Amino acid sequence: MLKTTTKLLVASALVAGLSTAAFAKDKVYKWKLATTWGSTLSPFIDAPTNMAKLAKEMSNGRLDIRVDAANKHKAPLGILDMVKGGQYEMGHSASYYWKGKDINTLPFTTMPFGMTAPEQYAWFYYGGGLELMQKAYKRHKVLSFPGGNSGNQMGGWFRKEINSLDDLKGLKMRIPGFAGEVLAKLGVTVTNIAPGELYTSLERGTIDALEWVSPSMDVNMGFHKIAPYYYTGWHEPATELQFLVNERQFKRLPKDLQKILITAMRVAAYDMYIQNYHMNAVAWAKIATDYPNVKIKTLPKNVINAMKKANDELLVEKAKESPLIKEVLKSQKEYLKKAREWTKMADYKYLEDNL
Amino acid sequence: MLKTTTKLLVASALVAGLSTAAFAKDKVYKWKLATTWGSTLSPFIDAPTNMAKLAKEMSNGRLDIRVDAANKHKAPLGILDMVKGGQYEMGHSASYYWKGKDINTLPFTTMPFGMTAPEQYAWFYYGGGLELMQKAYKRHKVLSFPGGNSGNQMGGWFRKEINSLDDLKGLKMRIPGFAGEVLAKLGVTVTNIAPGELYTSLERGTIDALEWVSPSMDVNMGFHKIAPYYYTGWHEPATELQFLVNERQFKRLPKDLQKILITAMRVAAYDMYIQNYHMNAVAWAKIATDYPNVKIKTLPKNVINAMKKANDELLVEKAKESPLIKEVLKSQKEYLKKAREWTKMADYKYLEDNL
Repeated sequence: MLKTTTKLLVASALVAGLSTAAFAKDKVYKWKLATTWGSTLSPFIDAPTNMAKLAKEMSNGRLDIRVDAANKHKAPLGILDMVKGGQYEMGHSASYYWKGKDINTLPFTTMPFGMTAPEQYAWFYYGGGLELMQKAYKRHKVLSFPGGNSGNQMGGWFRKEINSLDDLKGLKMRIPGFAGEVLAKLGVTVTNIAPGELYTSLERGTIDALEWVSPSMDVNMGFHKIAPYYYTGWHEPATELQFLVNERQFKRLPKDLQKILITAMRVAAYDMYIQNYHMNAVAWAKIATDYPNVKIKTLPKNVINAMKKANDELLVEKAKESPLIKEVLKSQKEYLKKAREWTKMADYKYLEDNL
Repeated sequence: MLKTTTKLLVASALVAGLSTAAFAKDKVYKWKLATTWGSTLSPFIDAPTNMAKLAKEMSNGRLDIRVDAANKHKAPLGILDMVKGGQYEMGHSASYYWKGKDINTLPFTTMPFGMTAPEQYAWFYYGGGLELMQKAYKRHKVLSFPGGNSGNQMGGWFRKEINSLDDLKGLKMRIPGFAGEVLAKLGVTVTNIAPGELYTSLERGTIDALEWVSPSMDVNMGFHKIAPYYYTGWHEPATELQFLVNERQFKRLPKDLQKILITAMRVAAYDMYIQNYHMNAVAWAKIATDYPNVKIKTLPKNVINAMKKANDELLVEKAKESPLIKEVLKSQKEYLKKAREWTKMADYKYLEDNL
């Protein structure tokens, strides 16, 4: 009996060791992610939702991330603070929302007259952009990753045609952020209005024009019913959202879960770019069919040139605000120059013959 | 003693059960992947290499895929057969290589005058393309997935300028596949020459022109040293490579490893598109600096139109070969029409003002 018991003891000890390891490996990390977006704001909300689903499936349930939309946490523009403070392990938002808090975070979403989506992804992943973004968020002890690209955003809905620089003077337009600063320099009265009041404001003439996103998200707002001119974009050629991760929490994850999380974020970001490409194509086909009077317009060349000049002047000012933003803007400018030459001889020339 | 022994027995049985589960979960799947590419053919070879690395890291070593380059297995164009036959669990190649074996596999790589990379990814993932590709490979008992996009490929290196349709007549050009069929209809003498002999053939005038890939991969071939005209592309606007997976082997993987594999393939594919965008920008900057006499040319409008007509005629013929290819070509045509409207008002209009 003793012999058997000893065997059992040894076996038990051995297997107990194994099972401890198995338990450690099976530890479930329950995380929470806060987004800036409402629970129905597709495709923005789909990026974190798809990311969380992928992470859970790939980890066999060991990395379980709950996504809280803005309607739940009520702090759509408090994402960086909540991730930094640890109330949420992760966030999903757009970096340029924190420009008032930390100017260095401005250039990682998109810049007027800047890179297109493939150019910008190339900059992030192969041209040093991601390293610069991590550098900008380092002081917040937050890791940051590309979180999904909207592609080219439209210039907005206008009730009157813009034929000259004079037409911009006194024009009342809802256009937030850096693009608003550019237009303000050209005499536009830039206002900000809550999303829920935009339609009525445009309909009643409280504003003459507004910028929202692109057909995929504009279609549900209904602006095409009351504004006949849909201007092509110049101000957000490739709006990249961001995933934010509390650095301390990230370091606590086992190596395989870190890799699963990083990969899930990366693929969800790319997917959102492609999803929105699809949604834009479908939504525009619908608008064009239902409202054939909507006209696609491009701002006149001299207006574009004046906006570029205003933009360049603003960039010179921004570059003075910190050595890091200066470094980032320089890196973007140099990369854009090189990448655009390729875009020109590849996709642009191809499209010229295939419109 | 009995009591303790019983306890031990129970504990042992319990823990043995656990450890069996733990062992099952820890089972390592050792797979092999065969690629069409040589071990140094970047970025094509990077897609399967990066995919395998990611799968291994995310699975904590449980999914271990060895990548065999063509120099190892010596059957660069035998990938479908080897995956189908089970010698390799996976392959990485380009679907259009099997058009002689199964015409239905032709349209999933790229088509002349077809979709650009974001349009085509949107078609694959949100427009029904992936389902159609799975349908085409079903009879081979092989699963197929996007495997990395080259982006727009250049039209090729020419020693003489093409100013008219007459200049195409009797022109000796190396251009394989469907694009070669299009040019043959316009009087081009289409030849195929082994890669290692291309440079000498072009230098000695055995051929007048050749198509390879784009700056990233052309730069190492040195064609820019001997051919002054670099024509923009029309024939491969978005060459998507493919991952192939033996269906029976895939089904043997646990659910989490299946998800890890699918995600690793998906992100590696997107990454290759972006990597090549970067490599093209860098390589073109180098060619343009070192060889300032190289001229970017676009074929004259009437030549393009004649090629489009020849292409349309060929597509009508191909569509007759099987109900499935007819369905796929129709799906692509309809999707392209819708997606191109968006491309035109978004990236194309933006680039027009920002070249």
